[in-house]
Amino acid sequence: VTGERAFLEMLRALPLHEGARGLVDDAAVIEFGGRSLVLTHDLLVEGVHYLPSDPPGDVAWKLLAVNLSDLAAKGARPLAALLGYGLGEGEWDRAFVAGLGEALAAFGTELLGGDTVRSAAGAPRTLALTALGTADGPVPSRSGASAGDDLWVTGTIGDSGAGLSALREGRHAEALVERYRRPAPRLEAGRRLAPLVGAMMDVSDGLLIDASRLAEASGCGCGIELAQVPLSRALVAAEGDGLDARLRAASAGDDYELLFAAEPSRAGDIGALSADLGLKMTRVGALTSGEGLGLSHEREAVALPSSLGWEHR
Amino acid sequence: VTGERAFLEMLRALPLHEGARGLVDDAAVIEFGGRSLVLTHDLLVEGVHYLPSDPPGDVAWKLLAVNLSDLAAKGARPLAALLGYGLGEGEWDRAFVAGLGEALAAFGTELLGGDTVRSAAGAPRTLALTALGTADGPVPSRSGASAGDDLWVTGTIGDSGAGLSALREGRHAEALVERYRRPAPRLEAGRRLAPLVGAMMDVSDGLLIDASRLAEASGCGCGIELAQVPLSRALVAAEGDGLDARLRAASAGDDYELLFAAEPSRAGDIGALSADLGLKMTRVGALTSGEGLGLSHEREAVALPSSLGWEHR
Repeated sequence: VTGERAFLEMLRALPLHEGARGLVDDAAVIEFGGRSLVLTHDLLVEGVHYLPSDPPGDVAWKLLAVNLSDLAAKGARPLAALLGYGLGEGEWDRAFVAGLGEALAAFGTELLGGDTVRSAAGAPRTLALTALGTADGPVPSRSGASAGDDLWVTGTIGDSGAGLSALREGRHAEALVERYRRPAPRLEAGRRLAPLVGAMMDVSDGLLIDASRLAEASGCGCGIELAQVPLSRALVAAEGDGLDARLRAASAGDDYELLFAAEPSRAGDIGALSADLGLKMTRVGALTSGEGLGLSHEREAVALPSSLGWEHR
Repeated sequence: VTGERAFLEMLRALPLHEGARGLVDDAAVIEFGGRSLVLTHDLLVEGVHYLPSDPPGDVAWKLLAVNLSDLAAKGARPLAALLGYGLGEGEWDRAFVAGLGEALAAFGTELLGGDTVRSAAGAPRTLALTALGTADGPVPSRSGASAGDDLWVTGTIGDSGAGLSALREGRHAEALVERYRRPAPRLEAGRRLAPLVGAMMDVSDGLLIDASRLAEASGCGCGIELAQVPLSRALVAAEGDGLDARLRAASAGDDYELLFAAEPSRAGDIGALSADLGLKMTRVGALTSGEGLGLSHEREAVALPSSLGWEHR
């Protein structure tokens, strides 16, 4: 099976639109009619990105939310979505559409079009969504961070991964499962952070791997202090807040929080924004000269775990 | 299994963007700063829309071409494409990317982004593509035809369906198979026809079913003279040009020709454009008052076949 990295390398040899940002960013950006249009396209595969037992309305919510999270990371306001849908069993399809309607309303966006197909018999579903947004100001990339920038993250990390573990192991953990099934893209935070940051992306594959990608795209290294990684009360109640729990949280993925690099002089503005939005924003590390990711826990160096996150292999 | 029609009815109850055109058109249209952005999203499913034995480069070509055909029908110039791809076996993936590169170059468009996912083990592939185009003039809908308009089609009809039959039955029919595997979206014809037509769409599911849809969307009926349906020499050599062959051709689908309705006074302009492009354009019938599709063959009424085309059931 081809790895994602190798496949992306092949795609980079094709004719690329300049708005593709070299296929290293979360979204594409096109200037059109005096506006910046931001486009993203994400697929969900049954059994890979969601559990066959997940409620269909939650799958619809997640399909929209993961795409809008990419728009949030680019400071864009959602405009509309195109849906690619494999028809299946009637009850599931009806519940999916109901959940999609809830999500569209919750995020203030609308359906623009798409395609429905007959699914192959017995095959897991593949669901596709393309989200279109508009940005009025700068559109942060992954690659604009500089050595010396602080590295920040919104909200709390690891809840969704812990929710998935609980589901798989049949444990009760409602708040964590809710984070897994109904992620909340940080749309307003993204729009208001965009002018303050050097680089921004969403945490979809895991804080550690996504931070490495941001640093690599920016030609920097990156240090993360695990004791600073923000954990929710629900997560600490379920898993504690020791080093192991923190490493698990930081490599679990599906957080859909914003990860951003900003000059230290921005800390005051970021703190004020955090207070204004009622959304935690936590400095978890810094960009460094050199390359690679370094971890510490209470200032003691920590070896990198074997997996930094989800690698699409 | 939910039918496409029932599913679309459910989607129509969701918050729709005005550019969605009520989900009755081939593409969505959004105005920005006086320009029209045209968006379309089509999926191909292995075993449903292409044969597992089809060469991967041809599958890539088809994935792009069927989306660009929707842009052609809206008179739009392709701008870029987002790809949704399920990773699989390395050799297939490499050949797919090579074919995608050929198709991007052939149609003068570029890759803008997308997503790659791990496919579910053993599952048929689902491939997604979102194409973006721009239109500087009017963007024809399906619904703008009037009773009394002529109904026209570009090129020849039925080749692709006959190519697919030949492949399934192990018969040799190179030219027809080429039409099935490498459809040619009528991009320039679409741009130049857009100002001349009342309604336009592409023929993807079959001439008869697509003509019915255009007529229904326009609040008209439609009559088609089967003897006028343009057949290629290759098709006539393989299947003859009797009524049965014509009915098969007109309900086979995958033609990716343009179907359009125009006032009779436009016939001269359409003829001149056809000559200029070296692309056959044939009047196959007319829009009528009332509703429904009527068929004739050499002016004798013909009963509708049990299937007018591909219905996504």
